[in-house]
Amino acid sequence: MPRTIDWVDGRLEVVDQTVLPSVRVRVLGTPGELVEAIRCLVVRGAPALGVAGALGVALAARETGVTEARLRAQARVLARARPTAANLAWGVGQALAAWPHGPEAVLAAALRIRDEDIRSCRSIGAHGADLLRSLLPDRPVLRLHTHCNAGALACVEWGTALGVVRSLHAAGGVDYVVVDETRPLLQGARITALELAEAGIRHRVVVDGAGPSIVARGLVDAVVVGADRIAANGDVANKIGTYPLALAAARAGVPF
Amino acid sequence: MPRTIDWVDGRLEVVDQTVLPSVRVRVLGTPGELVEAIRCLVVRGAPALGVAGALGVALAARETGVTEARLRAQARVLARARPTAANLAWGVGQALAAWPHGPEAVLAAALRIRDEDIRSCRSIGAHGADLLRSLLPDRPVLRLHTHCNAGALACVEWGTALGVVRSLHAAGGVDYVVVDETRPLLQGARITALELAEAGIRHRVVVDGAGPSIVARGLVDAVVVGADRIAANGDVANKIGTYPLALAAARAGVPF
Repeated sequence: MPRTIDWVDGRLEVVDQTVLPSVRVRVLGTPGELVEAIRCLVVRGAPALGVAGALGVALAARETGVTEARLRAQARVLARARPTAANLAWGVGQALAAWPHGPEAVLAAALRIRDEDIRSCRSIGAHGADLLRSLLPDRPVLRLHTHCNAGALACVEWGTALGVVRSLHAAGGVDYVVVDETRPLLQGARITALELAEAGIRHRVVVDGAGPSIVARGLVDAVVVGADRIAANGDVANKIGTYPLALAAARAGVPF
Repeated sequence: MPRTIDWVDGRLEVVDQTVLPSVRVRVLGTPGELVEAIRCLVVRGAPALGVAGALGVALAARETGVTEARLRAQARVLARARPTAANLAWGVGQALAAWPHGPEAVLAAALRIRDEDIRSCRSIGAHGADLLRSLLPDRPVLRLHTHCNAGALACVEWGTALGVVRSLHAAGGVDYVVVDETRPLLQGARITALELAEAGIRHRVVVDGAGPSIVARGLVDAVVVGADRIAANGDVANKIGTYPLALAAARAGVPF
């Protein structure tokens, strides 16, 4: 699987999210092409959109005859390509701040965001795997449950919640993963299942309504999900269908 | 909406369950046609299958040149058309027991089962509506939540869980009904929503994963579902996806 989004020979290469589970890489050479790709959901996933915003400004900064006024105008259009994606506007702003130092500084700032996303995911994976091992010291291999997609295909690579699964799997610590199909858009069935298959991790897709019963029957040792946002008090906002899994885990005493 | 299953001019008329939400009535003139219809899920729903089994024996008992041996052979094939449907074999047995009194007695026994199903559903509806009103005396109109289809289309008419909704609606006591789509076969989205639309009851279909959040947010006053079986201790077996709704209702203090 290629990186979800990357900078290759002066252009962006992105995995087209609209045709998954088919894997097709799209090459985007101009800020306008990127804006269109974001609008059409070719690029999606909060971390990936942050990187996309920054690399988009880098594309704009390297165009012939660029001026600051023109760059700022393009940055505004980019940031508004998905108004609900906080990461997108953040990435755009980070890259734009480097403009006084020239186009190569903008590109360097964008590439730092890309690399930082990769490091963050690896770190989340390692910490999460350690946490699960410490919570369940008696179980050398874990049966896990996840919902939606918080994987490599929402980031640059590796993933957040699925990064935990990958890190644990890399150490031989995963028995199998139960994946909710995740209606209405089926990110579990289409995207997470694809990632697990490519990584050689045993898994089964189930309808969302079955998830809590699977937890209640003791068929998984822990539930690992992503988070759209985490509040200061620990409350988590995430894809619809996360709450019933959390209820079932609390009832069954399964780590969530 | 015609009756789900009925005896009309010496033949069975059934609503073809495979093409819902389109409503198409199929006429079945022989026991063999009925067996095929049961196998292909043209006829489904536990109560409806009980009536189908009995009326199927009535069809066989009225055929030219029938003998007891031949009737019993046809009854066996009928009872085994869906081995997991306890009601089917029960209905077949009830009708067959009338054979010593002749084919018209068999038909009369089968029609009693049909009529008893209608009476039972009306009675379940009335008792359930009374129960809800007594549990929620401060709320003149109720916002209800249901899962799968326990409606007229699983019975002869009116329905069991949905019969409660219909009875309450007949007394002006329903604000709206939230219907889980009920993956994998979408009985909520295809069948329950159709019944509610035809009955003029306000409703909205939601993905199964959203059900528990809707309960938690106080958007429904009570949850009403069917039951495949009820154990002596009160435990209920029902369609996958019922358990998370029950968990959420228990947590929120919403009658289930």
